[in-house]
Amino acid sequence: MGLTLAVVGATGAVGRIMVQLLEQRAFPAERVRFLASRRSAGSTVAFRGEQHVVEELTPDSFHGVDLVVSSTPDEVAGQYLPLAVKAGAVVVDESAYFRMDPSVPLVVPEVNPQAIERHQGIIASPNCSTIQLVVALKPLHDRARVKRVLVATYQAASGAGKRAAEELFAQAHQALRGEAVRAEEFPHQLAFNLIPQVGSFRDAGFTSEELKMMRETQKIFDDPTIQVCATCVRVPVANAHAEAVFVETERPVSVGEARQWFERAPGVRLFDDVEAGQYPMPIQVSGTDEVWVGRIRKDPTHPHGLAFWCVADNLRKGAATNAVQIAELVARKLVQAG
Amino acid sequence: MGLTLAVVGATGAVGRIMVQLLEQRAFPAERVRFLASRRSAGSTVAFRGEQHVVEELTPDSFHGVDLVVSSTPDEVAGQYLPLAVKAGAVVVDESAYFRMDPSVPLVVPEVNPQAIERHQGIIASPNCSTIQLVVALKPLHDRARVKRVLVATYQAASGAGKRAAEELFAQAHQALRGEAVRAEEFPHQLAFNLIPQVGSFRDAGFTSEELKMMRETQKIFDDPTIQVCATCVRVPVANAHAEAVFVETERPVSVGEARQWFERAPGVRLFDDVEAGQYPMPIQVSGTDEVWVGRIRKDPTHPHGLAFWCVADNLRKGAATNAVQIAELVARKLVQAG
Repeated sequence: MGLTLAVVGATGAVGRIMVQLLEQRAFPAERVRFLASRRSAGSTVAFRGEQHVVEELTPDSFHGVDLVVSSTPDEVAGQYLPLAVKAGAVVVDESAYFRMDPSVPLVVPEVNPQAIERHQGIIASPNCSTIQLVVALKPLHDRARVKRVLVATYQAASGAGKRAAEELFAQAHQALRGEAVRAEEFPHQLAFNLIPQVGSFRDAGFTSEELKMMRETQKIFDDPTIQVCATCVRVPVANAHAEAVFVETERPVSVGEARQWFERAPGVRLFDDVEAGQYPMPIQVSGTDEVWVGRIRKDPTHPHGLAFWCVADNLRKGAATNAVQIAELVARKLVQAG
Repeated sequence: MGLTLAVVGATGAVGRIMVQLLEQRAFPAERVRFLASRRSAGSTVAFRGEQHVVEELTPDSFHGVDLVVSSTPDEVAGQYLPLAVKAGAVVVDESAYFRMDPSVPLVVPEVNPQAIERHQGIIASPNCSTIQLVVALKPLHDRARVKRVLVATYQAASGAGKRAAEELFAQAHQALRGEAVRAEEFPHQLAFNLIPQVGSFRDAGFTSEELKMMRETQKIFDDPTIQVCATCVRVPVANAHAEAVFVETERPVSVGEARQWFERAPGVRLFDDVEAGQYPMPIQVSGTDEVWVGRIRKDPTHPHGLAFWCVADNLRKGAATNAVQIAELVARKLVQAG
């Protein structure tokens, strides 16, 4: 009696990577179904050496499904995923819709895998910028307790969707040719420019993206005393988000300790040899599944302060990889319980 | 008896803007001479409706010169500018060579014009990233005393020189065509990428650029208690640097107060209406002489914390404009002393 897995949003930018990862990581599902919006239904997805037809997502899609991994717009998640739970499936959702629901665990497997136990059908995967931040903070928090984090992000176009990433290149072409630059996916020209707005404006001048980083971090660490303030900026990079992080811990941390802890931390790749010109950059990190950490320094303005720089592929560890990792943990339990 | 001004480095990226500004701002010099390295000597510079031949910079260039504005590599400044002082001129230097010399005032006219009085022949203009930071901090420091600043920069290619700015576009062309990307001016590909290194690596893992921001800020405010920690990043933007700033003040500052103070601050352009989608961006700020401030928020992680975003043209206010403003103050004194 093997598991039946459904991939919702299988044809999107994140969904396609999920499908690849399920195959590459030999996900323990006997059957895998591929669901998407009507627009994409009927197209095919290559998986385990065969072409699979993508089915249209409907309220009746989940009969006989044990486990769902989903990457859709928030409103689609809100509408369909409760139906999957009702049909008896456990759902891993990559959208923002359920993340701050107190009954829904918000999970990064390297940080709080134990939270999965408390699920009531839905487990949420955090925002891309949050995931790479908490993976990097985890070894510091475990040993020295993180109290305050100030973070400035450098976020790639792909975080706004596949068409947005294409728009960056189209705009670059237009700008290089001296033509008028058209912005449809972004609120302004992104090519050769910076847009200090990711998401929409909400409370107290913060954007939705900034608030996600601030609130989701507390929920993932299950610690409302971790204070985060973020400034999120879209940069003309195709893929992989970067973050300049300033952190204050309860106990002081030396650069040597931090380096040692990062080196052993699951999901972290320490890449910090400035004398050899080594520090993480998006073009090198794109396509990988780890959070790359470099530029580690004592913050001379605070006795317990540390500064570092981290880069991760926002479509992979920031979305698809994290969701598949959660699904692997859930699948193991389902098989054991099976 | 009008003043004789010499522009050193008149053909460089900053020098050319200096020459334009001297004309546009009706600089009170009767005679202006244009000096440059041997390579550029003999070329011409348009000024006040005439073409002027650029002279080669030699040890004897400064006879009869009252005032010098200079933008050259550090070693050229170190070699020639003391000779100008010896010949009786007052020198405004845009290079880093003399900035931290205790006998040399480091001046941003909106912040510490009084420091000019103490000069002994040379007055230094600060680093581009520092200038925009201190212009923005000034109104906060005057009224609430700035204690600690954490800043992440987003620095344009033009800050690395004219050829570097051209290399960004050449790299973008190569990347869009799928060709191998060549990096000569930058240590790595900058197009569609981020390089978390500006300058060279120095003490404790910080780069020269980061240390400049930290040390020059204290010198300009004449206050060693202002603590600054910076992470400086090169971004694929042609011109105008941006900074995500987190500041802690002695007295708490509300967003309303900060906005009012920024609005009245000389050299600052408040551009902060997020509901109308208004925040400063490099493509809009490039070519202007002000420091644009937006995204002003209370930092919820600190009772006396404020977060904001500022953008300035690094070649203009970050270099040429600031040097010409200093020279104007010096010229006024020289004319008065007559």
